[in-house]
Amino acid sequence: MTIRGNCIVAQSGGPTAVINSSACGVVQEALKAEPITGVFAAHNGILGVLNEDIFDLGEEDPEQVEGLKRSPAAAFGSCRYKLKSLEDSRTDYERILEVFRAHHVHYFFYIGGNDSMDTAHKLTILTKEQRYPLVVMGVPKTIDNDLACTDHCPGYGSVAKYNATIAMEAGRDTEALYTHDTATVMEVMGRNAGWIAAATGVAHRTAEDAPHLIYLPEVPFSIEKFVADCKKVYDDLGRVFVVAGEGINDGEGNYVAEQKGQFAKDAFGHIQLGGVAETLKGIIQRQLGTKCRYIKMGTAQRNGIHFASKTDRDEAYLVGQKAVQHAAEGASGLMVTLERKSNNPYVCETALADLQEVANGEKKVPREFINDEGNGVTQAMTDYVTPLMQGEVEIKIAPDGLPEYTRFTRHNLEQKCKRR
Amino acid sequence: MTIRGNCIVAQSGGPTAVINSSACGVVQEALKAEPITGVFAAHNGILGVLNEDIFDLGEEDPEQVEGLKRSPAAAFGSCRYKLKSLEDSRTDYERILEVFRAHHVHYFFYIGGNDSMDTAHKLTILTKEQRYPLVVMGVPKTIDNDLACTDHCPGYGSVAKYNATIAMEAGRDTEALYTHDTATVMEVMGRNAGWIAAATGVAHRTAEDAPHLIYLPEVPFSIEKFVADCKKVYDDLGRVFVVAGEGINDGEGNYVAEQKGQFAKDAFGHIQLGGVAETLKGIIQRQLGTKCRYIKMGTAQRNGIHFASKTDRDEAYLVGQKAVQHAAEGASGLMVTLERKSNNPYVCETALADLQEVANGEKKVPREFINDEGNGVTQAMTDYVTPLMQGEVEIKIAPDGLPEYTRFTRHNLEQKCKRR
Repeated sequence: MTIRGNCIVAQSGGPTAVINSSACGVVQEALKAEPITGVFAAHNGILGVLNEDIFDLGEEDPEQVEGLKRSPAAAFGSCRYKLKSLEDSRTDYERILEVFRAHHVHYFFYIGGNDSMDTAHKLTILTKEQRYPLVVMGVPKTIDNDLACTDHCPGYGSVAKYNATIAMEAGRDTEALYTHDTATVMEVMGRNAGWIAAATGVAHRTAEDAPHLIYLPEVPFSIEKFVADCKKVYDDLGRVFVVAGEGINDGEGNYVAEQKGQFAKDAFGHIQLGGVAETLKGIIQRQLGTKCRYIKMGTAQRNGIHFASKTDRDEAYLVGQKAVQHAAEGASGLMVTLERKSNNPYVCETALADLQEVANGEKKVPREFINDEGNGVTQAMTDYVTPLMQGEVEIKIAPDGLPEYTRFTRHNLEQKCKRR
Repeated sequence: MTIRGNCIVAQSGGPTAVINSSACGVVQEALKAEPITGVFAAHNGILGVLNEDIFDLGEEDPEQVEGLKRSPAAAFGSCRYKLKSLEDSRTDYERILEVFRAHHVHYFFYIGGNDSMDTAHKLTILTKEQRYPLVVMGVPKTIDNDLACTDHCPGYGSVAKYNATIAMEAGRDTEALYTHDTATVMEVMGRNAGWIAAATGVAHRTAEDAPHLIYLPEVPFSIEKFVADCKKVYDDLGRVFVVAGEGINDGEGNYVAEQKGQFAKDAFGHIQLGGVAETLKGIIQRQLGTKCRYIKMGTAQRNGIHFASKTDRDEAYLVGQKAVQHAAEGASGLMVTLERKSNNPYVCETALADLQEVANGEKKVPREFINDEGNGVTQAMTDYVTPLMQGEVEIKIAPDGLPEYTRFTRHNLEQKCKRR
């Protein structure tokens, strides 16, 4: 029997260019779904539930809701709050149930990565144990592309397209000035998995094209090899453009960004300072004797809806929509996944996976996607990511020439529970 | 009497999103101009002349030439080679004349900033002195927007639009995660003038909108005031997003990026390290006790043709085209300028200025464009820059989903002079 009741949608973890599109898919579908009555958003993910800070999406201008499809970041607010085990966070879990009960919430849609799926999974267990009827559905999101059980993650195609374009554009700068600023290092996100760095390889269409070297956390990083790689490219082209994932490390837990082990000092005993980009810049300047610039896009890379992938955006919407459809049909404790049926033409369908399986998994870049030298990618990687970068998202431009992004007015629900 | 002969076009200084559009304007107009016979490009600016490294643009695919309008960086190659006085660089100047003579070059179009206009000016003097008939025209280019004699510079509108959009998008990230990563610093280019930093102020439409604080090289920077500014915004909003020009300094020649004077150590005696963004990040983390992220777009900001201003692109083309038209009519020793006739509606026409005047001038952000506190901009600044950011440039997308940018095949002219 299908439960009737209100739903809460929430966003969690690092924002992406298209997490709002997933939210839009959930909201627009939930507003139509027969068993779902009110459609609410928790402000800042699960924290909004804990703080009873919840607003009514039915009260928002439908144009602002529609605008989610072309707005970056997380319009409901996000959080990095991880619930521990049911034993260790008992008061948190009971508080969540109290708030759900008070607002007749029987549907919970959580858009996030594996920590969020872990939280969603634990809520499933708790509500079963407490015999509180709650449908829990996970909606995948992460630029890192490291979720298990899905071919790829919404958010990844857009960061891939944008960063590859940045590498291409800044690469042309290095090329134009190759009498002067002849080396550039670009640091991209990806702490444990190198999917983001790997995607920039698509920009390397010919030997001339940046990036000439790509380093991923999956391959142990050595300064000696790095210097040799740079020298080789430099000898061939008179310039070098490097992309490095923020999580590159020596394979023994020493991260370049943390300056431990071999990264604490360079071959000449100079102390390394700063993050990955600054460190590699320093190495290049000293060892190649050329001026090196660096680029650290930081959070800008994951919010580039102004040049996002339409394929990614549409899939982000789809997984949100499907989560509601499955929930309305009685499914629970699952995350919507993406299954690639064929690559050429690209055909992708949705499926379902157990929240627990997603929560415990992690997907790294397979060795066959990385070249033998460990400093670039193979055709298999390019074939994998190219279909995910297709098409551009049309955004709305305001009279001042800049984009117009959704911001909600947030009509908060009346608080019915005691303050924490 | 008009001279008949070949022309050389060259690009100089830091690339921009639209310097190729100016090149396109020169080339397409020169190919039509009656007195101009061959249309050549010097590879890497004046260095290409000195090295007799010159290629024939008439041999390039017209589609690639047309593609310049949607390609960033400098397709002819650029340089940072500054010619000294006629006395000190006599051999260089004579070499240039030798190469011009050998290839019957009687028109020279130099696209660049004030150093390039200085070189162009000196060439004018030399050729007069040597009675070699040479028409020299300057075409303005600089993201820094600091050229004298012109309302604004091609390249500026695009970097303004792109950086303001980045601040808006990354600002939404800081807002979404304001339970966690609550501070962000974005470093932008602009060593002596703060035009680029100031333009991001357009994104600050409401008190909520990033950037909340903007620091320019024109206003002496104090760490104490900076900390107080950040604390105030933080108290109001629970987050803070800062834009800082790379050239911010204490007004006495001590640059934040160089860690001299008060910037060598912070108030607690901690040694400052890294560039502007890292330094401000360190200050915020220690003084506000919150995690701070930073963004350094580096050369990516000046090559963002994928989200450039169409107004800027069209004006860049126009100044190139006008340079040829004036040259064909016998003008020489001048740079094409932009004159704003009205702001609403925006009407802008071209005019001419003496190369020498441009070479010796520098235009900073006027005090009335900066707020009293020195941490933001006024309506006058917004009114100035908004018309320059209008419209988007349509780029060409390849089947892999990424942009397609022009690269020349470079049919080099046969070398006729002795090697240097």
